[in-house]
Amino acid sequence: MAERLVKGVREPDMAGRPAKGARGEQEALGVLARLLPAAPKGEVHFGDDAAVVRVPAHGKAGGYLLLASDAVVAGVDADLSLTSLADFGWKALAVNLSDIAAMGGLPAHALVSVVGLGPDELALLYGGILEAARQYGCAVVGGDLSAGPLPVVSVAVTGWVRGRPVLRRGARPGDRIWVTGSLGAAAAGLRLLRSGRVGRAEELLVQAHRRPRPALAEGIAARAAGATAMTDISDGLARDLSHIAESSGVGFELEDVPVAAGATLEEALGGGEDYLLVFTASPGAQVEGAFAGLAPPIAIGTCTADPSRHRLAGRPMEPWGWEHSL
Amino acid sequence: MAERLVKGVREPDMAGRPAKGARGEQEALGVLARLLPAAPKGEVHFGDDAAVVRVPAHGKAGGYLLLASDAVVAGVDADLSLTSLADFGWKALAVNLSDIAAMGGLPAHALVSVVGLGPDELALLYGGILEAARQYGCAVVGGDLSAGPLPVVSVAVTGWVRGRPVLRRGARPGDRIWVTGSLGAAAAGLRLLRSGRVGRAEELLVQAHRRPRPALAEGIAARAAGATAMTDISDGLARDLSHIAESSGVGFELEDVPVAAGATLEEALGGGEDYLLVFTASPGAQVEGAFAGLAPPIAIGTCTADPSRHRLAGRPMEPWGWEHSL
Repeated sequence: MAERLVKGVREPDMAGRPAKGARGEQEALGVLARLLPAAPKGEVHFGDDAAVVRVPAHGKAGGYLLLASDAVVAGVDADLSLTSLADFGWKALAVNLSDIAAMGGLPAHALVSVVGLGPDELALLYGGILEAARQYGCAVVGGDLSAGPLPVVSVAVTGWVRGRPVLRRGARPGDRIWVTGSLGAAAAGLRLLRSGRVGRAEELLVQAHRRPRPALAEGIAARAAGATAMTDISDGLARDLSHIAESSGVGFELEDVPVAAGATLEEALGGGEDYLLVFTASPGAQVEGAFAGLAPPIAIGTCTADPSRHRLAGRPMEPWGWEHSL
Repeated sequence: MAERLVKGVREPDMAGRPAKGARGEQEALGVLARLLPAAPKGEVHFGDDAAVVRVPAHGKAGGYLLLASDAVVAGVDADLSLTSLADFGWKALAVNLSDIAAMGGLPAHALVSVVGLGPDELALLYGGILEAARQYGCAVVGGDLSAGPLPVVSVAVTGWVRGRPVLRRGARPGDRIWVTGSLGAAAAGLRLLRSGRVGRAEELLVQAHRRPRPALAEGIAARAAGATAMTDISDGLARDLSHIAESSGVGFELEDVPVAAGATLEEALGGGEDYLLVFTASPGAQVEGAFAGLAPPIAIGTCTADPSRHRLAGRPMEPWGWEHSL
């Protein structure tokens, strides 16, 4: 794949020859060859040492290359007894596209590094990956396959932005704080899946957990509206907004937080994995206008000059986001 | 990192709050902040949703972006009882740079996705990664950290090539076949490490296993010499040369294979992980001239029109490379 499709995995006990009867990389290669679309003329995707892609012209405005990577680990980032391998693949790509969305960029290419899946499982995983790739206009151009005792899927993506990307560090005191939708749906969906009681009415919440949607159009709209800082909500609003506040040297005062129907306030603040965007913009910015044709973003508060101020509805806000033991 | 430095890892049993007393991502962030060099002005490396890098000018000749990724898995690609975490980090980056070398390109950026290492281990791993990055002129611009039950390090790299990269598929009947050095040292080094008997004389072999050197200068020289096809030797010469032959629709007739001092012929043909380059060029190409100042490459045989012909010293050649069960 980008480099070889199949990484030379060393099995320490092998004397240098293939394990007899092992369903190995040749079969996996065949699976992927049937699934993957052809590379555009003049480019090389899977099958060589590296993928070869054209560098797009950026015009007079100049532009930047965006690079992001993120791994999903079975049993940690996804419970494969509750979600399918196709969902796992979708999520592995979607969380990376969400990072491109959070810069106001457009995705271009993805590399997919898979550990610990056999050929049949790989086909299911890639089904979800390629579905997300088609939906969001991202070409899967390479990657590698490795043996391992549990499924880990690491995706790296490139993206492009004309002009300046929206960083986390540009928020100023007085800027309004916006989110691109109601929060907590993904966490509520996971809670319902675990409870084993999912009715038709809850299907939307479950889908928010299984198939998070990177907010690419919203990121571009926010950038067009003059967003001063932006990030995606992967660890929960409380935590992700704190990243903007810390990077920018501001505090925040939230008036209210939109909670998705069926979710709790705690899920909305700390559940994470909604992959909506939170951004800041000057009070005079024409935010609603830039979002014409999209779901309107919701103003939830204001940045303050005091960086120690983290408040919701007049009370100190708990850091309900995720701190992860490593 | 490229995207967040620390990926929002979900611990399925956590109710949404940090594990008490866990040495978590904030500590890991601090470790990396002390290790990483600052980004050039106008670029953003670690600490935002995605890394932001400039797209270099390519001049009139045009150019291509190269993308490669490769994972190393503890216990599969490296035995951490025999090699250090710094070596593991070096190798994780080096094997990716080798893929850029195999296209005749120059590396630019790396994203490092780490699963299953705590802050102290991370510092050791990054020591080796950053040593390789400095040595080979590659900026580590981002990545992520995830919890997991065993160490997996996935690296994705970008590279650039002016003009056309050297693919696997351009070899023609009659082309001479070259390797950039003697083979089998890495496999011999691993054998010695396992035996527990490593004398001073064997240190070079062990080093070839622990710290493989991507052949970046050699890849550029081979491209300048007009190489028609090229790949890196990660799975063993027999197997990697077969990739060139299959992609190009040619066979090969090898006269001899240079075996590293202390290695066996089997290690040279099938041991893999030497990360030298094998390339083809027309008989009239000025290969030695293009390698002035580098160790001279070694001609080992000729491409044949019959794709089923895989011969060494007049005898059919065994596919001694690695076929991996997944």
